[in-house]
Amino acid sequence: MRIAVLGTGPVGQAVAAGLAGLGHQVTVGTRDVEATMARTEPDMFGNPPFRQWRQQHPGIGAGTLADAAAGAELVVNATNGTGSVAALEAAGEENLAGKVLIDIANLLDFSRGMPPSLLVSDTDSLAEQIQRRFPAARVVKTLNTVNAYLMVDPGQLAGGDHTVFVCGDDAAAKAQVTGLLRSFGWSDVIDLGDITTARGPEMYVSLWLRIYGLGSPMFNIKVIR
Amino acid sequence: MRIAVLGTGPVGQAVAAGLAGLGHQVTVGTRDVEATMARTEPDMFGNPPFRQWRQQHPGIGAGTLADAAAGAELVVNATNGTGSVAALEAAGEENLAGKVLIDIANLLDFSRGMPPSLLVSDTDSLAEQIQRRFPAARVVKTLNTVNAYLMVDPGQLAGGDHTVFVCGDDAAAKAQVTGLLRSFGWSDVIDLGDITTARGPEMYVSLWLRIYGLGSPMFNIKVIR
Repeated sequence: MRIAVLGTGPVGQAVAAGLAGLGHQVTVGTRDVEATMARTEPDMFGNPPFRQWRQQHPGIGAGTLADAAAGAELVVNATNGTGSVAALEAAGEENLAGKVLIDIANLLDFSRGMPPSLLVSDTDSLAEQIQRRFPAARVVKTLNTVNAYLMVDPGQLAGGDHTVFVCGDDAAAKAQVTGLLRSFGWSDVIDLGDITTARGPEMYVSLWLRIYGLGSPMFNIKVIR
Repeated sequence: MRIAVLGTGPVGQAVAAGLAGLGHQVTVGTRDVEATMARTEPDMFGNPPFRQWRQQHPGIGAGTLADAAAGAELVVNATNGTGSVAALEAAGEENLAGKVLIDIANLLDFSRGMPPSLLVSDTDSLAEQIQRRFPAARVVKTLNTVNAYLMVDPGQLAGGDHTVFVCGDDAAAKAQVTGLLRSFGWSDVIDLGDITTARGPEMYVSLWLRIYGLGSPMFNIKVIR
């Protein structure tokens, strides 16, 4: 499948590489291709610049947000949550219409130091904000509850015996995303319901950050029932 | 140990019965003893009135919030989160000073229908509000992430193989509470850190409510690491 991954940070890189590894035709979208490719410094977390990653993944395309989205059958929002709506506007409402839009971003405020705090409260979610702004996109919230490396390779932890969630208004879109998640190795995919249920996985990130604070990001929760 | 459980709802009842079952000397505290004992109707969730529960648990004392707290070595806040600070004020700051105060309450807004939404955002928590208001109390947040029946009998689900959290500024208080949790059957107790980390388990309740919305409240998460 032709997939656009919007965002060139560690999450975008991991998801793009994971999708390409499954045989998908992946294009990474960035606001300013030239500026992104010109960067030679590591990011604020010490991750290598996109240019270097690109050289290691020659099969993955790169283009503007709009070019990537226009050519894709499915779009992944892996941009920084605080810039997601603007990035999707730059991708173009017409390039998202009718398409499955996987939202894996979190709305975090790093301005008060670590851990960051959530910029949404429990009466809204980033996924809902995106669905409201792009009503013709078929938004599915998923994967925002785990580290980028686990997103595309859950088997790295306990053989994949842990849980991921999907939330969205479009049942067919959720079924397609669930298939994609299973192809990554996710065995326990819980459909929480409509797009408003994305508040749950988004609020959970507050707990994720505290557990992460104890040591490694290579953990997840399993819903025992 | 002499323990006061403040709150006569289903959570207070379950915790009081669980503690009494372990041999503790338990007194349930309520704002207005006469009014609570006079009630003959089930509550908004269909739970039987306190009076009926009391008859089934003759070994458990009942008194005012202040009487219960004054006579106790350890206090459990099982009141409704929106009324917790007021209830603890009625219990008396002097009756909480120096004591371990286990806070298991959640700040929920039921006014918009189900599921309720959280009344705290990720920059504060009920546990912190309580600790700020009662600086001499040794507040430990725990158990707010599971159903009342699992709180005191985690073995009902998967033999107890799931996780509970403790948060608080006082290491000795957390150690004592962890011991109490182990006596209930909790095997995986994660100490998240100081009282600000209570934001994590409190925000998680948003996800808990959505999973609960799929069916049964008899579930929990296990942190896989």
